[in-house]
Amino acid sequence: MNKLFVVVMLFGFAFAKAQLQQPSPSDSLMLRSIYDQNLTKSKSYEWLDHLSNQIGGRLSGSPQAQLAVEYTYKELLKIADTAWLQPVQVPKWTRGTPEIAYIESTDGSRLKVNVCALGGSIATPELGLRAPVIEVQGIDDLKSLGSQVKGKIVFYNRPMEPTKIQTFEAYGGCVDQRYSGAMEASKLGAVGVIVRSMNLRMDDLPHTGSMSYGNLPLEQYIPAAAISTNDAQKLHLELQKNKNTEFYLQQNCQNLGETTSYNVIAQINGSKFSDEIILVGGHLDSWDLGDGSHDDGAGVVQSMQVLQTMRNLNYQPQRTIRVVLFMNEENGLRGARAYASQVKELNQRHIFALESDAGGFTPRGFSFDASKSQMRQVVSWRPLFKPYLIHYFELGGSGADVGPLKGNGTILAGLRPDSQRYFDHHHAANDTFDAVNKRELELGAASMTSLIYLFDKYGNPEAKLD
Amino acid sequence: MNKLFVVVMLFGFAFAKAQLQQPSPSDSLMLRSIYDQNLTKSKSYEWLDHLSNQIGGRLSGSPQAQLAVEYTYKELLKIADTAWLQPVQVPKWTRGTPEIAYIESTDGSRLKVNVCALGGSIATPELGLRAPVIEVQGIDDLKSLGSQVKGKIVFYNRPMEPTKIQTFEAYGGCVDQRYSGAMEASKLGAVGVIVRSMNLRMDDLPHTGSMSYGNLPLEQYIPAAAISTNDAQKLHLELQKNKNTEFYLQQNCQNLGETTSYNVIAQINGSKFSDEIILVGGHLDSWDLGDGSHDDGAGVVQSMQVLQTMRNLNYQPQRTIRVVLFMNEENGLRGARAYASQVKELNQRHIFALESDAGGFTPRGFSFDASKSQMRQVVSWRPLFKPYLIHYFELGGSGADVGPLKGNGTILAGLRPDSQRYFDHHHAANDTFDAVNKRELELGAASMTSLIYLFDKYGNPEAKLD
Repeated sequence: MNKLFVVVMLFGFAFAKAQLQQPSPSDSLMLRSIYDQNLTKSKSYEWLDHLSNQIGGRLSGSPQAQLAVEYTYKELLKIADTAWLQPVQVPKWTRGTPEIAYIESTDGSRLKVNVCALGGSIATPELGLRAPVIEVQGIDDLKSLGSQVKGKIVFYNRPMEPTKIQTFEAYGGCVDQRYSGAMEASKLGAVGVIVRSMNLRMDDLPHTGSMSYGNLPLEQYIPAAAISTNDAQKLHLELQKNKNTEFYLQQNCQNLGETTSYNVIAQINGSKFSDEIILVGGHLDSWDLGDGSHDDGAGVVQSMQVLQTMRNLNYQPQRTIRVVLFMNEENGLRGARAYASQVKELNQRHIFALESDAGGFTPRGFSFDASKSQMRQVVSWRPLFKPYLIHYFELGGSGADVGPLKGNGTILAGLRPDSQRYFDHHHAANDTFDAVNKRELELGAASMTSLIYLFDKYGNPEAKLD
Repeated sequence: MNKLFVVVMLFGFAFAKAQLQQPSPSDSLMLRSIYDQNLTKSKSYEWLDHLSNQIGGRLSGSPQAQLAVEYTYKELLKIADTAWLQPVQVPKWTRGTPEIAYIESTDGSRLKVNVCALGGSIATPELGLRAPVIEVQGIDDLKSLGSQVKGKIVFYNRPMEPTKIQTFEAYGGCVDQRYSGAMEASKLGAVGVIVRSMNLRMDDLPHTGSMSYGNLPLEQYIPAAAISTNDAQKLHLELQKNKNTEFYLQQNCQNLGETTSYNVIAQINGSKFSDEIILVGGHLDSWDLGDGSHDDGAGVVQSMQVLQTMRNLNYQPQRTIRVVLFMNEENGLRGARAYASQVKELNQRHIFALESDAGGFTPRGFSFDASKSQMRQVVSWRPLFKPYLIHYFELGGSGADVGPLKGNGTILAGLRPDSQRYFDHHHAANDTFDAVNKRELELGAASMTSLIYLFDKYGNPEAKLD
């Protein structure tokens, strides 16, 4: 090899490096260490066991949410350079006693069905609500019915689309029924709303989730509940047999105003660029029916594990690595908003923000909210992840909690685990610890730590201050 | 664009096409149809429900294995152009009544532990076997102990390596203890063998599996059982406290000679190249502790679904698409050998043989046993699979049942589902229907059908007759 060639090659390499920072062989070794650590010495599963089995469902404003704040803060203090609580005002809603519902046939017979109040819904009258049912395939369908809706219970029955490979897309195509269904039905004089659970599987579990009355006056609020997919099918068949079928619903949930809760924040300070923040987070609150293991206990403990793994490996980041455990993602997003507004106020520079809020299943990769040049950088790292079967690096949504940080060149991202089973458990009584596989959880945390390591090493030249 | 350029480009394209048949836009549409069909109109889950819940565990030679032969044959007759049974002599082994085992401390206390006889093992004496225990990390370790083994129960306790991302590699690194452990221990005078279950998870379920006494004379056969991972850990700790700890095992399994069973075979005849066979299969037998839903009920119904989907889509293959449901993969591979020997005898040309025997989890891709040029062809199809998140197209093992078809340019392949949870269930009482997710199963079948469609369309020019 002649000298000129070597010089040209080196120059070319340096030039390429300036254009796009290429990962080095030491990065491969670092990723191997990160995965090995996570698969042998992770605390994530033990933390999740505590959150799920010792604390349980962590609805905003509940005693369990407060216990989760205290527990994770205490655990993070053991790992981080510094940890603190950011106060957040959150809505407090309680389910009350278990809901009761029947499909009531015109022949006087009745069939008990599985329902649960949607989060934020009002109660029915104490003795329940009984009314004829009108089935619709969504809000457009509802609007086309106009005055026929008056005095009825509206039954939203558009199922999730099974042909979507990414189940979050199927969810996105249905969830307007749950969120805005009651508001829209009320405007047309409906007296209540039953929504088919956002679940691709046919089973007996109702799935709760947030709903909103928007700007309706209080007196126009109507009760809203989810019905299991099996029972939605039964109601559909009953209505096909007889349009005069009635539905009986009794629920005594309550909106109890607001209360103070907290985002839990902790960080390892950067050794070189401490004012450049890399955020990783999930949300600490959950729904109340299960114990919130997938949604989002998994994201919480994976985020905490990012710091733990850096400590285990004696890795000193150049940039500040900050864990944020957001409060109130499920029914208000108050934690995310409070955090983003404080970031703005303090003029803190976030170069990257990664969220894990899609379950603790086998990780497949990440979706990014980033510029084209930023994506080129990220995609150049993909080969490093191949040994770990992480293949998905695509533009797309990041996550609800990091969303408000958009702007100033901050790259936002979401961990993308395998999504096939997610909506079997989402917001239902079977979102429980036993549904999380330890290795899958650990592989997710390892993938997150690996990506954060690369951002810590190579930075994000496009990120700027406000 | 000038004409010459167009001509050169077209020529270049045609040339590339001759070298490597490029998938066409119609292939994308066909794959979309295949996935849509599988996610909306599949019979696979219903078939699996029958195999698992109406029939149950299908150990070779058992009444359940016979019922499974009859059921799948009857179902395949409804779909295929032709279906038949190939007789196979299989070993018949029965577990008998549930095994009993204790760790017996020198202070007289005893701890009940969860064990199960390994498939093919002999029974203990009727009143059980009691002996001191010697722990080893594997067969090399055993051999280094020499005469110390005499009169003892050997406890093989090398765990599966958690840092392997593909859990089948971790299995491959341990399974010699189960398969050959008793034979090797017997040569050194051991009286029995306890093997740590091949399971990455810590739990209470023992995992069975095949073992062999090799060429040992009958009088040197010693009983062999698997112990749950939790109990293996307990036994390990007890031995650390006291080297004189004894183990008590009672099992009354029996080897009952041979019996006749069957491979179930069915095909849609090719319209153009009917003598070119594309095989897809799984194995009909299973272990007896669970109902064999993942191993390999899933592979069976996915293979059947390949034909069903072609019928649903009115797709007439050019080549013959043959389903083979192999008998006796678990403890003898007799079905696979009988099939391969008949293929040789009849001089049948197999261009491609695909096996599904790695569980019904979300498919990630395929591993191939193929030449470099064949792999180039296969890898050129990868972009077609991207919308379905199928990314893994690598050289590697295919499967035990298609293995004997190796040679003559036949491409062998195995479906590669996500493997993280597989060994939590493998050969244990929790390999049951509820552990299979309907969509994951269907996505596997869709991926298999898609690959078979491409082989049907583009062929395999390297495949030849014997």
